[in-house]
Amino acid sequence: MSSDTVFPNTVFPNTVFPNTVDQLPTPSLLVEQSTFEANVAAMSSALPGDRLRPHVKAFKSTALAERLVEAGHLNFCAATIREMEGMAAAGMGTDLLLANQTLDADRLGRLVDQGHRITVAVDSPETVDAALAGGVREVLIDVDVGMPRCGVAPDDAGALADLARRGGLEVRGVMGYEGHLMMAEPDEKPAQVEASMADLLRASAAVGGDVVSAGGTGTYDVNTWATEIQAGSFCLLDTDYAKLDSPFDIALTVLATIISTNRNGWAVADAGLKAFGMDHGGPTWPDGELFYCADEHTVLLDPENHLAVGDRVRLEPGHVDPTVARHERFWVVDGEDVVDQWAIDLRHW
Amino acid sequence: MSSDTVFPNTVFPNTVFPNTVDQLPTPSLLVEQSTFEANVAAMSSALPGDRLRPHVKAFKSTALAERLVEAGHLNFCAATIREMEGMAAAGMGTDLLLANQTLDADRLGRLVDQGHRITVAVDSPETVDAALAGGVREVLIDVDVGMPRCGVAPDDAGALADLARRGGLEVRGVMGYEGHLMMAEPDEKPAQVEASMADLLRASAAVGGDVVSAGGTGTYDVNTWATEIQAGSFCLLDTDYAKLDSPFDIALTVLATIISTNRNGWAVADAGLKAFGMDHGGPTWPDGELFYCADEHTVLLDPENHLAVGDRVRLEPGHVDPTVARHERFWVVDGEDVVDQWAIDLRHW
Repeated sequence: MSSDTVFPNTVFPNTVFPNTVDQLPTPSLLVEQSTFEANVAAMSSALPGDRLRPHVKAFKSTALAERLVEAGHLNFCAATIREMEGMAAAGMGTDLLLANQTLDADRLGRLVDQGHRITVAVDSPETVDAALAGGVREVLIDVDVGMPRCGVAPDDAGALADLARRGGLEVRGVMGYEGHLMMAEPDEKPAQVEASMADLLRASAAVGGDVVSAGGTGTYDVNTWATEIQAGSFCLLDTDYAKLDSPFDIALTVLATIISTNRNGWAVADAGLKAFGMDHGGPTWPDGELFYCADEHTVLLDPENHLAVGDRVRLEPGHVDPTVARHERFWVVDGEDVVDQWAIDLRHW
Repeated sequence: MSSDTVFPNTVFPNTVFPNTVDQLPTPSLLVEQSTFEANVAAMSSALPGDRLRPHVKAFKSTALAERLVEAGHLNFCAATIREMEGMAAAGMGTDLLLANQTLDADRLGRLVDQGHRITVAVDSPETVDAALAGGVREVLIDVDVGMPRCGVAPDDAGALADLARRGGLEVRGVMGYEGHLMMAEPDEKPAQVEASMADLLRASAAVGGDVVSAGGTGTYDVNTWATEIQAGSFCLLDTDYAKLDSPFDIALTVLATIISTNRNGWAVADAGLKAFGMDHGGPTWPDGELFYCADEHTVLLDPENHLAVGDRVRLEPGHVDPTVARHERFWVVDGEDVVDQWAIDLRHW
């Protein structure tokens, strides 16, 4: 294909779709197709079908989610109502879990009315009341399994389930997120996850139902107690999760252009901290060291002035979820070829 | 006005526009109108008319920019081409400066063709060539004034101006950003800015032209050498700039709902790090201490369990620019009343 031809662009009809990476504007968010596909294949092999409930918060794209459906995963979870609405509108409302608390359940009730299967996490009488008032019919009891965030105390889970059932809700089971253990030491992680899940199983025994939903990319392989694992970061990965010994590799980079060089030993790329999630620190430049990030610039140390104005670099984000949320689209690439474009259509709230 | 009435919503026609803060979805980005207006009035008094070239990177909204036009500031600067395109399309193309380098100047040339006055910063032969090839006619020479980022060495500025003029460009003058001095110690800042600006004035003497563009919210009052000050953060401020002794106050907060409480002494708000720029650290909760931020949660320390599920809190961002870039709109409020809505329409690239 010549460099002048363009792909039909169905996602962004008014945008010309370049077919080589060197034609892309910068900054652009790239997904290396073969790495993404290998990540999905590895996870689908470990956790086939409903054993995985992919978490859309990590990629916020219905186009990417459709690839997970093709891999056999029909049930998803989400962190925001906008993610739930977008997945339902895209036809992936088979079994959608809002793995979060909300008082704004009217929006979820409208999805129920449209025929989607919607479940919401609850951890208080107030969130039970909101689910009932909003017209949601199914809930999971969210249990505190050691990470200081949401979740009812394990010993209070049964009473909350009783309250929910008295109101008329179907309680499908429990969920609990052992997020504090994602990056635990490998030799300690299995025992720590087991202890955390013991709390969840005790709650499950009191609550009833057949769902025990837990886990993430950092514990998918050691959490053998959950009936389903909530993982999403494995699809694209980031430099933080890449520290773990796993079959997943970094598929996500930010493409940037060198727009300025300085003889004192640095070069400036045109993707700054507005193009990255910075809570895990700045991006990684595989060919050298990061100096610092400003709003629209990443300054790279280049002591021998190898970089020239016009060069392009691919920078690896520290944290996938908040990086993705800063961009409008993924450019799916195969090396230097652009092969597809996925809208990041589940952003905002 | 009753709580059932809604304002006509011209910015987002499909969005109902609530008229009280308690009806807003969360997270939402709030601008306290009186504080914003006082900030603008203070800056316009200090730097009237063309003495201020407001930097749209700090607010990314043409609706907000229009308030600055009403205050007498017609010339703007920007950090991205998308910001330039959006400002021009909104009718604010009187004198637009891309205070950044670019190789993608074709997009700027199209704005020139549409009749807008477009100037771009250059700091290398490559960016001069790009400006020429793209059809831009006016440039500023970007000078390294001590912050390690873009800018030609002061002693090389004249030669670069000569190169630009030989190509046919109009060189309007110089710019230099003393960003490393924004938070300098108050007793040292004037002398440090003077030394930095001495470099810029030396470059200006070699370059010619009548523009010496520099400065920011942290130096607007001490930088008496620049002909115009590039400042934007003063409009909304953040907890970082609030540390300075200035007439500006924090107008920007993120509204969040408490969705979970824990008897062990914390409460969880539904605005997480995807709602904030995190490079200056997490948000500030004026009524207590932050515990930590997760993707969609901010966990607040609440040792005496004062917060209840359903309560609302206003969190103050650490860094205005990347926080704004995470949101679709500002809700302009007067205490508990919603009085306007401004699209954040200059985001992305």
